[in-house]
Amino acid sequence: MVGGAVEGNPDAAVSTFAKIEEAGPDAITFLANPKYTHHIYDTQASVVLVRRDFEPERPVSATMIRVDDPYDTLSRLLEFAAQALTPQPSGVEQPCYVAEGVDVPADAYIGAFAYIGAGACLGKGVKIYPQAYVGPGVTLGEGTVVYPGAKIYHGCRIGARCIIHAGAVIGSDGFGFAPTADGSYHKIPQIGIVEIADDVEIGANTTVDRATMGATRIGRGVKLDNLIQAAHNVEIGEHTVMAAQAGVAGSTKIGAHCMVGGQVGFAGHITVGDRVGLAAQSGVAHSIPAGAKMMGSPAIDARDYMRQTVYIKRIKELADRISALERASKSDK
Amino acid sequence: MVGGAVEGNPDAAVSTFAKIEEAGPDAITFLANPKYTHHIYDTQASVVLVRRDFEPERPVSATMIRVDDPYDTLSRLLEFAAQALTPQPSGVEQPCYVAEGVDVPADAYIGAFAYIGAGACLGKGVKIYPQAYVGPGVTLGEGTVVYPGAKIYHGCRIGARCIIHAGAVIGSDGFGFAPTADGSYHKIPQIGIVEIADDVEIGANTTVDRATMGATRIGRGVKLDNLIQAAHNVEIGEHTVMAAQAGVAGSTKIGAHCMVGGQVGFAGHITVGDRVGLAAQSGVAHSIPAGAKMMGSPAIDARDYMRQTVYIKRIKELADRISALERASKSDK
Amino acid sequence: MVGGAVEGNPDAAVSTFAKIEEAGPDAITFLANPKYTHHIYDTQASVVLVRRDFEPERPVSATMIRVDDPYDTLSRLLEFAAQALTPQPSGVEQPCYVAEGVDVPADAYIGAFAYIGAGACLGKGVKIYPQAYVGPGVTLGEGTVVYPGAKIYHGCRIGARCIIHAGAVIGSDGFGFAPTADGSYHKIPQIGIVEIADDVEIGANTTVDRATMGATRIGRGVKLDNLIQAAHNVEIGEHTVMAAQAGVAGSTKIGAHCMVGGQVGFAGHITVGDRVGLAAQSGVAHSIPAGAKMMGSPAIDARDYMRQTVYIKRIKELADRISALERASKSDK
Repeated sequence: MVGGAVEGNPDAAVSTFAKIEEAGPDAITFLANPKYTHHIYDTQASVVLVRRDFEPERPVSATMIRVDDPYDTLSRLLEFAAQALTPQPSGVEQPCYVAEGVDVPADAYIGAFAYIGAGACLGKGVKIYPQAYVGPGVTLGEGTVVYPGAKIYHGCRIGARCIIHAGAVIGSDGFGFAPTADGSYHKIPQIGIVEIADDVEIGANTTVDRATMGATRIGRGVKLDNLIQAAHNVEIGEHTVMAAQAGVAGSTKIGAHCMVGGQVGFAGHITVGDRVGLAAQSGVAHSIPAGAKMMGSPAIDARDYMRQTVYIKRIKELADRISALERASKSDK
Repeated sequence: MVGGAVEGNPDAAVSTFAKIEEAGPDAITFLANPKYTHHIYDTQASVVLVRRDFEPERPVSATMIRVDDPYDTLSRLLEFAAQALTPQPSGVEQPCYVAEGVDVPADAYIGAFAYIGAGACLGKGVKIYPQAYVGPGVTLGEGTVVYPGAKIYHGCRIGARCIIHAGAVIGSDGFGFAPTADGSYHKIPQIGIVEIADDVEIGANTTVDRATMGATRIGRGVKLDNLIQAAHNVEIGEHTVMAAQAGVAGSTKIGAHCMVGGQVGFAGHITVGDRVGLAAQSGVAHSIPAGAKMMGSPAIDARDYMRQTVYIKRIKELADRISALERASKSDK
Repeated sequence: MVGGAVEGNPDAAVSTFAKIEEAGPDAITFLANPKYTHHIYDTQASVVLVRRDFEPERPVSATMIRVDDPYDTLSRLLEFAAQALTPQPSGVEQPCYVAEGVDVPADAYIGAFAYIGAGACLGKGVKIYPQAYVGPGVTLGEGTVVYPGAKIYHGCRIGARCIIHAGAVIGSDGFGFAPTADGSYHKIPQIGIVEIADDVEIGANTTVDRATMGATRIGRGVKLDNLIQAAHNVEIGEHTVMAAQAGVAGSTKIGAHCMVGGQVGFAGHITVGDRVGLAAQSGVAHSIPAGAKMMGSPAIDARDYMRQTVYIKRIKELADRISALERASKSDK
C-alpha cells in the first residue's frame, strides 16, 4: 500500500498513529525532521516510517518501513484513517433556513441553524455545517466545506474543494472611511466582493474583507491559517501559505508560492513578488522583489537581519570600546 | 449630481465602478492618490474623477470630471449604487428567538436564528442578522446593524447607527485573575458592561471585553477594524481609528482623533493623548502626550525611530570603524 | 464578612462597585496598585478597601476597611454581587438541536440554536449558550460554560468548570500541508483532538487547533485571553496565563506557571520551561529554560534587552563619537 521496504518484524500490527516521542506499542509513527532522530532508538512504536537512506547509528527495535517521503506516506495513511475516524455528516438537518428558489444538491450537507440566502448557488457535495451563514447570492463550488459558524457575506464567490473553518468571516466591509471637515469619518460603501479560487483553505476566525470596488482575491491553492486579516482589495497569489495572525493591509498584492510566517504585517498598497519568504513577526513596509527572504520589522534581507542582530547584541560592548578609544585619545594629548 | 466640470466626451456612459488600473470601458473610476497618476494615461475607464487642479502631462482619452475631492465624490456615488446593489433585508425571519416582553420595532430586521434576550431594548430600524446574539438587557440604538453571528453579552449598551460586523464579540469577561497561594488563579468576576457610543463601527471578529466594574467605553464615531482586542475598562476617545489586529490592554485610555496602525499593542493602565499617530506594529509601553507621532517597539518619536533605523542598518559598518580605530590606536603606540 | 478593620464611619452604606477615580458616594472601591494611591484623598467613594499596613499621608474622608489583600476581598464581594447581577439561564430553550441519544443533565442550560452532536457527553450543570456548537463525541466536564457561538469540533475533550467564551474555536484542523512537486500543497489530515483540563478559561475568538495525531493539550487552570492562536500539538502547562493575541506555533511545549504578554509569538517545535515570563510583543525563536524573564523580538534576557534599548536609543550619538575619533585620528597624523 505504501510501496515501502520493511526492515524488522514484518508481522508488526498497529491500530493508531502517534508522534515518535509519545507513541505506544499500538502505534505507527514517522521520522522526517532530523531534530527528532534520537527518539527512534527508544520509541515504543511498533512501526516507524523512515527515509530510504536513513542510517541508524544504534539498533532500532521498531519495525522500520523505508519510503521515499515518510511525511507524505504518513499523510496518505492518515487520509485513509480520517475517512473512518471523522464524522461524515450528510442530508439536511432541521431547522435550517434555505431561501426560496435555492437549489440544494442531493448530496449536500446542510446543518441545523445554517442560513442560505436568496440566490445562493451551491455546488455538488458541499457541506455547510450548523450555524454557518451563506449570504444572498453567494456561490460555493463543488465539494466546498463551510465549518460551523463561518460567515460568508452576500455576493462572495468561493471555488471548488475549499475549506472555510469555523468562525471565519468572508466579505465583511473593507475598512474605508473619508475624513470630514469636523474630524469625524464618513463610511465609504464597500460594494465589491471576495473571490476565492479552488482548493483554498481559510483558517478559523480569519477575516477576508470585501473590496471597495472589484474583488479581494485569494488565489488557487492558497492556505491561510487562523486569525489572519486580509483587507479590502488584497490579492494573494496561487499556493501562497500564510501562518496564523498575519495581516495584510488594503490593496496589497502578494505573489504566488510565498511563505509568510506568523504575526507578519504588510502595509497597504505594496507589491510582494513570487516565492518571497518572510520570517514570523516581520513588518513589510515596502514592495519586495520575487524570491527575497526577509526578516525583522522593518523587514530587511534575512542574512543582513541576522548579522545585524549579532551586532545589536554587542552594542554595549561597542559603546564601551568607543569610550576606551576616547580615553586613550585624550590621554595621548 | 456631483457638481463637477466635464472634460472630454460628455455622453460617456458607465455601468460600474472600478480601480483605475483594472477598469474597463463600462466603468467610472477616480484618481486621488498621486502614486496612481501614471495609470490615467492608459486606463480603459470611460470616466475618471480627478481633482479640479489636476494637470495631465500627456493626453487622457477618458472623460475627466473635475471635482473638489474625487474620493469623497466617488464615495457618494458608491452610496447611491450600494443602495441598489446591497440586499436590504427586512421583517422577521423564522425561526428566531425573541424573549417575552421584548418590543420589536415595526421596521426592524430580525434574521433567522438570531437571539434576543429578555429585557433587550431595540431602537427603530435596527437590523439583526441571522445567528446574531443580543443578550439579556442589551440596548441597541436606532439604525444599528448587527451582522451575522456577532455576539453582544448581557447588559451592554450600543448607540445609534453603529455597525457590528460578523463574529465580533462585545462584552465577554475581562481577563482578570487573582493569583492564589498555590500558584493557581482565582477568577475576578467582571460585573461591568461595554458602552459603545453612536456612529461606531466594530470590525469582524474584534473583541471588546466588559469592565470589571463600570464600563469599557468606545467613543462616538470610533472605527475599529477586524480582529482588534480592547480589554476591560479600556476607553477609546471619539473619532479614533484603529487598524486590524491592534490590541489594547486593560484600563488604558486612548484619546480622541488618534490613528492607530495595524498590529499595534498598548500596555495596560496608560494614557494616550488626543490626535496621537502610531505606525503599524508599534508597542506602546508608556503614556503618550497629545499629538505625538510614534513608531517602533518600544514606540519612540517617529523621526527618531526612522533615524535610529538608518544607523542600525549601518551597525556592522560602525563596528568595523571601531575596530579600525583600535588597530590605528594600537599601531600608534 | 470580609474580616476587615473599619476606620471611619461604620455606618457608611454602598450599593455599587467602582474604580477609585470614578466612584460616587454610593460606591465601594479598593486601593491595591500604588500608582492609584493619590486618588484616595479625593475619591467620592464612601468605602475603600485598603491594605492593613496602608499609611495615608493626608486625611481620607472615605471609610477605610483594612484587609490583608484588597483586590482579593473585592473579588469575593464581586462574586457575591455577580450572582445577583448576572443572568443565570437554565432549562432547554427551543429550538435547539440535540442529537438522538445525548443525555442532557437535568440542571443543564441549553440555549436556543445550540447544537449538540451525536455521542456528546455533557457533565452536570453545563451551560451551553445560544448558537454554540458542541460537535459529535465532544465531552464537557461538570459545570463547564460554553458562551454564545463558541465552536467545539468533534471528539474534543473539555474538563470541568471550564469557561469557553463567545466565538472561540476548539479543534479546527491544524495547519499541516505537504509541498508537492508542482508547488501546490497537499493537506495532511488532522486526526487528533484537543484536550482541555479542568478550570481552564478560553477567551473570545481564541483558536485552539486539533492535533495532527494525539492531542493539543491545555493544562489545568490555564487562562487564555482573547484572539490567541494555539496550533496543532501545542502543549500549555498548568496555570500558565497568556494575554490577548499571543500565538503559539505547532508542537511547541510551554511549561507551567508561565506569564505570557500580549501579541507574543512562539516558533514551532520549541520548549519553554516553567515560570517563564515574556513581555508583550516578544518573539520566541528558541527554547527557553525555566524561570527566564525575556523581552524583545528575537527575545533575550529582559535586563539585557532593557540595557540594549538604552544603547540603541543612543546609536546616533555613538556614530557621531566614532566620526569624531576618526577626525581626531586623522588630524594626529
